[in-house]
Amino acid sequence: MAKKNKPCLSLSHFVGVLVFSLLFVPKSVLGVKQELRFGKKGEFKILQVADMHFADGTTTPCLDVLPNQMPSCSDLNTTAFVERMIQAEKPDIIVFTGDNIFGFDATDAAKSLNAAFWPAIASNIPWAAVLGNHDQDSTLSREGVMKHVVGLKNTLSQVNPAKAHIIDGFGNYNLEIGGVKGSCFENKSALNLYFLDSGDYSTVPAIPGYGWIKPSQQLWFQRTSAKLRRAYVGQPEAQKGPAPGLVYFHIPLPEFASFDSSNVTGVRQQGISSASVNSGFFTTMVEAGDVKAVFIGHDHLNDFCGKLTGIQLCYAGGFGYHAYGKAGWSRRARVVLASLEKTEQGGWGVVKSVKTWKRLDDEHLTAVDGQVLWSKSRADVS
Amino acid sequence: MAKKNKPCLSLSHFVGVLVFSLLFVPKSVLGVKQELRFGKKGEFKILQVADMHFADGTTTPCLDVLPNQMPSCSDLNTTAFVERMIQAEKPDIIVFTGDNIFGFDATDAAKSLNAAFWPAIASNIPWAAVLGNHDQDSTLSREGVMKHVVGLKNTLSQVNPAKAHIIDGFGNYNLEIGGVKGSCFENKSALNLYFLDSGDYSTVPAIPGYGWIKPSQQLWFQRTSAKLRRAYVGQPEAQKGPAPGLVYFHIPLPEFASFDSSNVTGVRQQGISSASVNSGFFTTMVEAGDVKAVFIGHDHLNDFCGKLTGIQLCYAGGFGYHAYGKAGWSRRARVVLASLEKTEQGGWGVVKSVKTWKRLDDEHLTAVDGQVLWSKSRADVS
Repeated sequence: MAKKNKPCLSLSHFVGVLVFSLLFVPKSVLGVKQELRFGKKGEFKILQVADMHFADGTTTPCLDVLPNQMPSCSDLNTTAFVERMIQAEKPDIIVFTGDNIFGFDATDAAKSLNAAFWPAIASNIPWAAVLGNHDQDSTLSREGVMKHVVGLKNTLSQVNPAKAHIIDGFGNYNLEIGGVKGSCFENKSALNLYFLDSGDYSTVPAIPGYGWIKPSQQLWFQRTSAKLRRAYVGQPEAQKGPAPGLVYFHIPLPEFASFDSSNVTGVRQQGISSASVNSGFFTTMVEAGDVKAVFIGHDHLNDFCGKLTGIQLCYAGGFGYHAYGKAGWSRRARVVLASLEKTEQGGWGVVKSVKTWKRLDDEHLTAVDGQVLWSKSRADVS
Repeated sequence: MAKKNKPCLSLSHFVGVLVFSLLFVPKSVLGVKQELRFGKKGEFKILQVADMHFADGTTTPCLDVLPNQMPSCSDLNTTAFVERMIQAEKPDIIVFTGDNIFGFDATDAAKSLNAAFWPAIASNIPWAAVLGNHDQDSTLSREGVMKHVVGLKNTLSQVNPAKAHIIDGFGNYNLEIGGVKGSCFENKSALNLYFLDSGDYSTVPAIPGYGWIKPSQQLWFQRTSAKLRRAYVGQPEAQKGPAPGLVYFHIPLPEFASFDSSNVTGVRQQGISSASVNSGFFTTMVEAGDVKAVFIGHDHLNDFCGKLTGIQLCYAGGFGYHAYGKAGWSRRARVVLASLEKTEQGGWGVVKSVKTWKRLDDEHLTAVDGQVLWSKSRADVS
């Protein structure tokens, strides 16, 4: 006799779960201005665009391209690459990891931001952005840039969490990716995205160089991660551990320097331009226990992923044409695909794997360096 | 004609300052259960006692002493050393930096704590303590130990700050050292002491080894430092920069490993047993800008101070006789002396220098390794 499909929960749980759900379904999943969730194929895809360095459009020349590319090359090549990537990958969200504009060469920050994000806006795909170290070098402050970004169409970016303590930086927020509509995980966040402002430059005279993620941001991250974990391990469909988390910001952590070319996928062609001090965010992420991968930009010639203490540390590789690069080494973008497992009953369950690849801005948008970043192990099984 | 001494502020400021003082004198200076302030000689002296490792008293043998010392040696030698140090130095406060008791060998934690702190209690000198990684290994939890300590006589220890957000650990607090009574700095904290719980062991499976100072503690420290700075640079007697801060906890930061024997005062005879990860507290202290020195214990055979990015990182050296040590290498304690400058008017001003030395538990309590840790520079002059 064919085994009958079981519902998400047995009938005896029904009333209790109904009451529980009405009381405790995380508001954030239901209350976001644009709901993010896994699609009917049990997948959620993220396109990361790092370091567009957009400035004034057609009048802004490219850097470090081959001589034959140079005459016709401008910011519009960056725009075209975003459009091609969206067309090719049809992501569920586009994440811009800072240096979205190159402020020094942008005459009007608002106009440059509008133009830089235009392909995302026009695609009607939700998008999110964080700040790099160059976004504020034009006519808007960091706060001004982030506030402008938040006002743009289709973005899920936030200046900062509404209910947090006072927090350093602009652009610290998280997004929850719900399970498949109609599945048992419809009202749970099956994948968590965190976005942080890694700052621009140190303001401490004794510390040269780039900025870093501060204790106030780490405490917010820590508490957000703990809150998400509580919801995930709670009813209904209580899980044993937290849902996987992916973290996006701009400047590498000092721990990105832990690798050499022998233990990464992708290339390390330049030094790791982290802050000159360690502010502990890697430790904080390891302790939180849910983060499976970190995605950054900043160093345009590095595009590797390396795994340290259970966390994949990934560069996206340089994307923008008005950003330093390496002539003949294609601009590139990183794609991440999270896939759900099938339940015994044939429905969609929790995340079973997180994969990544990059695409080069060549004729065929060649996909390279495909790899599994994380897959669910026995220990995670509920 | 002899120059007439000026009062702290000109007469024209008098009424305004009076009103201001009544409204804004930091409550904490006036409201501590035992007021700490610089003495009539313009000095404030701190005795640091690290790693007493007290257990059951007379029945607890010494470790790593010379064969001829062994037969009569017990926890009482530790007690006697505390008493001799107090007698010799007459400190204004005694600070115990953890592993006050060696819990594994303590039959009753409360009794061991009472005995360990007895010389301080009996001296009627205020004292403060933080936890090490061994204090909780007997009949009390970390919280239990800290609560017991706080109930003892003459201690200024606190379990945690009353008004802070939820904070990790037990024993995070600060003490303000007021200027000389009757001087212009009577109502200002001229020296700030911070105490933190550096934890015991990692509870994160992926991270082996010792604990670390968490984001919640760092945020508390950061905000406390900022609040103290605001009071110090505000009226009356507004200063240009913050008052010097000294930080006490147990486990070394990874940055203690930055030195070799060529750039320290004192010795480095063993590895730096820090957490295996960097949680960023050194960065947080550098950013705060007021911390001039950090004082820890934990590694009994290291007693050096080394300066990194403007902060002196100092071990105390092992103190207790039921703690590992090195036979023939005397148990020792660190003393810190902060001295005020004389104002033009002949009164006492702000801190001009912080000096340190150690004393060995030999016949003459030999003082060694005297050095200036910090002295006021032109940049600090108001």
